[in-house]
Amino acid sequence: MKLLSLARDLQRRKARERQHLFVAEGIRAVEELAASPVRIVGALLSATATDSARLLVLRERLRQRAVPIEEIPERDFLSASDTESPQGILAIGEVPLRSLSSVVLPREARVLLLDALQDPGNVGTILRTAAAFGVSCTLAMPGTVDLWNAKVVRAAMGAHFHHHAASASWSDVDAFVASQDIAMWGADGLGEQVGRRQPPARLALIVGNEGSGLTAEARSRSVHFVSIPTATAVESLNVAVATGILLHHFRP
Amino acid sequence: MKLLSLARDLQRRKARERQHLFVAEGIRAVEELAASPVRIVGALLSATATDSARLLVLRERLRQRAVPIEEIPERDFLSASDTESPQGILAIGEVPLRSLSSVVLPREARVLLLDALQDPGNVGTILRTAAAFGVSCTLAMPGTVDLWNAKVVRAAMGAHFHHHAASASWSDVDAFVASQDIAMWGADGLGEQVGRRQPPARLALIVGNEGSGLTAEARSRSVHFVSIPTATAVESLNVAVATGILLHHFRP
Repeated sequence: MKLLSLARDLQRRKARERQHLFVAEGIRAVEELAASPVRIVGALLSATATDSARLLVLRERLRQRAVPIEEIPERDFLSASDTESPQGILAIGEVPLRSLSSVVLPREARVLLLDALQDPGNVGTILRTAAAFGVSCTLAMPGTVDLWNAKVVRAAMGAHFHHHAASASWSDVDAFVASQDIAMWGADGLGEQVGRRQPPARLALIVGNEGSGLTAEARSRSVHFVSIPTATAVESLNVAVATGILLHHFRP
Repeated sequence: MKLLSLARDLQRRKARERQHLFVAEGIRAVEELAASPVRIVGALLSATATDSARLLVLRERLRQRAVPIEEIPERDFLSASDTESPQGILAIGEVPLRSLSSVVLPREARVLLLDALQDPGNVGTILRTAAAFGVSCTLAMPGTVDLWNAKVVRAAMGAHFHHHAASASWSDVDAFVASQDIAMWGADGLGEQVGRRQPPARLALIVGNEGSGLTAEARSRSVHFVSIPTATAVESLNVAVATGILLHHFRP
């Protein structure tokens, strides 16, 4: 029962931060975790999980990695689950230690800053997109949902496990940007249309909340603002879609 | 209590299709609905909904439109609600009658076909994106989630109410495409990289399920396949992000 109470406890951000652990739930998320170098503390299986071939393969993979697996009653599993339609498997992993000082940037580099983004599904989708477009690191700035929230982990489809995603303070970023010769651009509806200006060799793109826009901290650091033209002024874009369009456009 | 049982009933696709009604839930969705020409049958308010200035303005707007409003106990409201954190307001609207024969395409036009897309959040985000990039109409092909599902309506942020979004059969599409001189392109990971080829003046882009890809029906109709290059072959894109990138690229 120890893994179960741990998994329940990790539903709270404070517990994740204190223990440096997180939960990956669902077959896909646990598969991605099992295939990654991230350390796995243990896995929980619901007694009622259907023994699909895929789940059998996954159990075998976890066994090969010597991961402790506990089978528990469905009722208990549900108490630790965070999904609408639980698939009966979750694993507890160790949050990888990541420091900005370990990031080695290529000559042409892209960094992504998440400025007070709240929606876990959007943030997870953005991590997945950043990994796909060769972003060197994605930093969650103050006010952003915890990157290791189970919903973020699920939506990112494994991006957490190999993409350098971490939270950071603005002073961390200031030091990083200064030492690495990075220019910060803010995404903003009133900015210059994307495509008009060549991006710098090393670009940190800041994306903010759909409703409230960039924070004062982000604005004051942006040397340029960039926007995506839309057909009607009324219509705005979802932040994950907008970030995808910009990262695709700016890919190194 | 009649509105309440209607709202509950409309949680089922069959009921929505039979009655040509749908539910918009939450302040933002009801605001968008109230500002649109779509007919509103009635609104439900939870007795415990906080009387924010925004909600007061919205109630007044509904009153001006002579929309019947019923205040009901929170328990009852929750039984009709479809959200994780209900905001205490929902409205029932009439699904607009839309026919492909009424679509007037400009010389350069974009049409979007959703090929068996299941996730309501993704489909709603895609409708919002299509409206933002000047797509003439978005058609939900067989196997796609009902466009009037409450989650789709919420994620689309009002796009349903002015963008021509409707379900269609492949034979509807065949007739439409032939009569309007539209070429169908499929989005597919093995297709030619986007940007290599000029799109036709009138393009119907088909986007499919992330896991299983385009259906045989979609494949057989595509005269060209287009893909988005990613940094690592492993990493795939979320379908709403991929669609956003393609619609942005192909915007007329």
